[in-house]
Amino acid sequence: MAGTRTRRTDAELVAAIRSAVITELNEVGLGKLTMENIALRAGTAKTSLYRRWSTPQAVLLDALQAEFPQEHPTPSTDNLRQDLIDALKLMVRWMATPTAQAVVTILMERQRHPELAEAIYTHVFDAKGGRFTSTVLHTYADAGKLDPNFLTPVVTDIGEALVMKKTFDSGELPSDETITAIVDQAILPAIGKKTDS
Amino acid sequence: MAGTRTRRTDAELVAAIRSAVITELNEVGLGKLTMENIALRAGTAKTSLYRRWSTPQAVLLDALQAEFPQEHPTPSTDNLRQDLIDALKLMVRWMATPTAQAVVTILMERQRHPELAEAIYTHVFDAKGGRFTSTVLHTYADAGKLDPNFLTPVVTDIGEALVMKKTFDSGELPSDETITAIVDQAILPAIGKKTDS
Repeated sequence: MAGTRTRRTDAELVAAIRSAVITELNEVGLGKLTMENIALRAGTAKTSLYRRWSTPQAVLLDALQAEFPQEHPTPSTDNLRQDLIDALKLMVRWMATPTAQAVVTILMERQRHPELAEAIYTHVFDAKGGRFTSTVLHTYADAGKLDPNFLTPVVTDIGEALVMKKTFDSGELPSDETITAIVDQAILPAIGKKTDS
Repeated sequence: MAGTRTRRTDAELVAAIRSAVITELNEVGLGKLTMENIALRAGTAKTSLYRRWSTPQAVLLDALQAEFPQEHPTPSTDNLRQDLIDALKLMVRWMATPTAQAVVTILMERQRHPELAEAIYTHVFDAKGGRFTSTVLHTYADAGKLDPNFLTPVVTDIGEALVMKKTFDSGELPSDETITAIVDQAILPAIGKKTDS
């Protein structure tokens, strides 16, 4: 195995391993994910995996967490509508990645791997702000621009729910027009805001 | 095969065939659905299937359509909130049935069977009112109790989207409390109504 190692920085090696575990998952599935195969695909030795992670699932969770995007509201908190649109666009761009496909694969197999599905919520989604639009909404509430009482578990889920539903129904990722309609027609009314476009 | 036939009314026979095709689908999958196996499971002859339908997919679509529930708004159209809650409860009850499981199976395999997935939308969902809550919303708009301009494709999808999202995230069907919160916090604001509870 040592012969397949190339001179890479630590960061490059970790990036290669993260990419390898996601490709492996999407090709062979959760049941056949091994340290051996991840190492092979990343062109490294099993020992360099075990130095950082103890199981293939740990490698996977780390990769999912690293690739999951985090929304960044405008620091001046003066453009709620655009920040919400940008948050959902970020979600849609992520949904087109192999990482998102890996997340769907795992959540679909939740019956067989309940701890791993649970870990995705706690170590990936919650670690990056919980739900798309929710970091934006809470930032505006903290800045006094929005009544925090509006931010219930239902309301912070409206954007993600509609993006997922539209994708599921059409088999295609929602357009920018659909994203804008979701913000204007569903999210803003639910937080007591009129559309200001 | 004739020996396995029992004396059933036409309606009983059709009901047995509908139940058989859904069980077959959930047990063997779309790829292995045959007239032979449906007939066997329904305890009838293949000929009595061919008298009514030309393909296993046609039997399946007919069964899905027959089992898909249709919401019925209060005729006096004076209780929009409760009618919306009832529509989502109807959806949640349906989601617990083998028919719903069959629909999910087919939609998951949409890549391999695009026409069948498409047919579910046109012959099942649209034939029964499109989306849960949408028949209710349009009935109230027709009665002049609601501005029809609110009823966009996004807004008539809010209820279903949130029920699906909550189910997907938790792995459990939403409680009555969650359904009520969806109506009060997401649907009613989107159609310009304050919660009147």
